[in-house]
Formats: sequence, C-alpha cells, structure tokens
Amino acid sequence: MSNKISTIITVFERSPDRGRGLARDMPVRWALEEVGEPYEVRLVSFEAMKEPAHRARQPFGQIPTYERGDLVLFESGAIVFHIAEHYRRLLPDDPNARARAIAWMFSALNTVEPPIINRGVHEPWCEQRRPLVEEGIRDRLGDLSARLGDADWLEGAFSAGDLMMVSVLRRLHASGILNEYPNLHTYVRRGEARPAFKRAFDAQLAVFTAASGG
Amino acid sequence: MSNKISTIITVFERSPDRGRGLARDMPVRWALEEVGEPYEVRLVSFEAMKEPAHRARQPFGQIPTYERGDLVLFESGAIVFHIAEHYRRLLPDDPNARARAIAWMFSALNTVEPPIINRGVHEPWCEQRRPLVEEGIRDRLGDLSARLGDADWLEGAFSAGDLMMVSVLRRLHASGILNEYPNLHTYVRRGEARPAFKRAFDAQLAVFTAASGG
Repeated sequence: MSNKISTIITVFERSPDRGRGLARDMPVRWALEEVGEPYEVRLVSFEAMKEPAHRARQPFGQIPTYERGDLVLFESGAIVFHIAEHYRRLLPDDPNARARAIAWMFSALNTVEPPIINRGVHEPWCEQRRPLVEEGIRDRLGDLSARLGDADWLEGAFSAGDLMMVSVLRRLHASGILNEYPNLHTYVRRGEARPAFKRAFDAQLAVFTAASGG
Repeated sequence: MSNKISTIITVFERSPDRGRGLARDMPVRWALEEVGEPYEVRLVSFEAMKEPAHRARQPFGQIPTYERGDLVLFESGAIVFHIAEHYRRLLPDDPNARARAIAWMFSALNTVEPPIINRGVHEPWCEQRRPLVEEGIRDRLGDLSARLGDADWLEGAFSAGDLMMVSVLRRLHASGILNEYPNLHTYVRRGEARPAFKRAFDAQLAVFTAASGG
C-alpha cells in the first residue's frame, strides 16, 4: 500500500440502506479490496448528487463514481469491470473463460437484478403486483441454481461475475426467498465470507454510522 | 467474407415483437454486421428455449446465444462486448475512452433500460402504475439528453456503448416519449441509419416474415 492514494470513489453521505451494504458503492469497494487497491471516498448528499459538479462525473446524478488520474467512470458494473481488467485480477486468463465471467456480470445486472429491484419498489399497488414479481425472481433463481449446481463459483475460480452476482442476490436477504435455493444461499454466504468483502462491508457501514452520529 | 461461417447465433423462431427488431438478437446482429463477421442463425421455438439443449447454452432459457469455436456465450451485452473486443472494433483504442464506452454499455442495460422494460409490462394494474414508470423514464432521458448535447455519439466515435444505448432507446418508438427529446430522437435515427443496422434489421425481419408464411 502506497502512501499516496490516487483512487477516489463517490458514495452516499447517508446511505438509504442504513449501512446494509446494498448501495452500489459496495461492489466497487469489494472489487478494490479484492485487488488490494486503497481508495478514498468522497461523500455526497442527496442534494449534491443532483448538482452540476457531481453530474459531470455521473450523468444520472447517482453513486458510485470512480476516479483515478484523468479517468472518471460511472456505473458499478463498468467500474468493477475496469478494476478487474486494470489490475488483471477477478477475470480468468483463458479468453473463453474470461468472456463467460463477463457474461455473468451482465447477467447479474440485466437478467437477475431487474425483478429483484422491482420487488423492492414500494408503491400503493405493489402488494397486488408482488406475487407476479416474485414468480419472476423465482424463475431466475431456479435457473441460476440449476446452473451453479454444487460448484463454488459460476465460472471456475471466483471472478468479477461472482462479485456482481453475489452483490445482486444479497438484495434478497430480507425477503427470505434465497433460503428456498440452498446452493444459492451458500454461494452468497461464500462471497460474504471473503476477507475483501468483509473489509468493504465494514468500510461502508462505518460511513453510515458516522453520519448517524453513532 | 470466407465461405466457412463459424459464428452461430440463436434467435426466436417467431419473434414476439413481430420483426420490429426489438428482440435481444438485434444488437448482436448489428455488432456482427459492424465488424463484418458473417453468421448463421439457429431458430428456436418458445418450447425449445426451455429444453436442456438450449439451456446448456443459455441458463435462463432465453435468446440470443453466440457460438464460435468452443466459445458459447449468452447475454446480449456480453456478446456485443466480446465481438467489440475480439474484432478490435466498436471500442476506442484510448484506455480511458474505452472504459467510458464500456460504461455506456452497462448504463444502457442497467440504468436506462429497466424503467423502459417496466413500461412495456402489461398487467391489470399497469395503467395505474404507468405515470410513475414514465416519470422514471423521463428522468433518465433528460439526463442522457443533457449529457449527449449536440454530439453525434456518447463517447467520440460510434462505439459499442452507442450500439447498446440506441438498441435500448428504440424500445420507446411506439410510445412517442422519445420525441420529447429531439437530440435523443436524432441520435437513435443516426444509429438506425448505419448500413450495418439496416442489414441486421432486414435479416431479423426476414426470419419473422418467413415464419409467418409471408
């Protein structure tokens, strides 16, 4: 670890998940911990997120952003991919295995996550809609469970694909749905047991605790 | 173009969009046309998509898949990325510009697309929900429009990021919402005017027309 920290990420000043590590800075922190890259955080309030200074970094006024040298990047999936590629970690060397690990990253964010996010939307008509949304989630989880089987990770060794998939599946903890798929439950716990995950989790929790005067 | 075609993609035998080029094989076809790689298509019925033979290629029983040599790949975003990387096209050479083009790919699929997909869900309670979903779409489009400004493409030259973003925005044609953002409307038309897009569009339409006995 060098004394000069050149990587900066932007995170919620006060995360709406109250430090449960479900905000989108979590996979970025986790990836940085996996590759051993120290980083600093810039805290942004909900108001500051919508200001021009932040929007210059993140066009949609969201978190996280990633800055290193003259590179400014947004989208958690893209940042995790960049970290994996830049540090030559978190992706297999074999070209075909690498392509498949990247497929799992896109799959986590574009196939598995959307119904999970929809379940978390709280609007008056959601109770009515919930059974169908949960059916969609179970379709995805059943398929993913069948593919994972008794393997530890989706594509050989732990990869950026697992990092994104575990990050997405963690959103289901409170729902109990994950318990219906024992191998997926174990898969998520296996990800959360990684020392890099724990360091990332503790770091984001510390931000929330400090913001809450804890 | 060689006589031996070694790339195979899987597409709907009969696309539910009736040949409007909104199925997820469209961006893959478009990318293959952009890099000049010929390909064959394997048609799958809705029944065959859920069978073990197809699920071995696509764990969620969806289309498209991509096969070349011993590589079998799924997820349209991952396939487009693989094509861009493999053929050294559709991504800038400069590392920072490349990272940002990849960010637009993830942004298209994980930030811009989800509310657009939700608008297209037809369930009894959707009429009630639609105004809020459309508000979410307009938030994203307003931000994207501001970032694009009067540029032709999102990150310098046309890239895989534009290919995915245009593919996602095309889902809004029937809604009329895109017309509220003139620069985005022009951006989408600019993408659709590319010869590679037109070839891809015609090819997918020909499959639907043949399936319909046209």
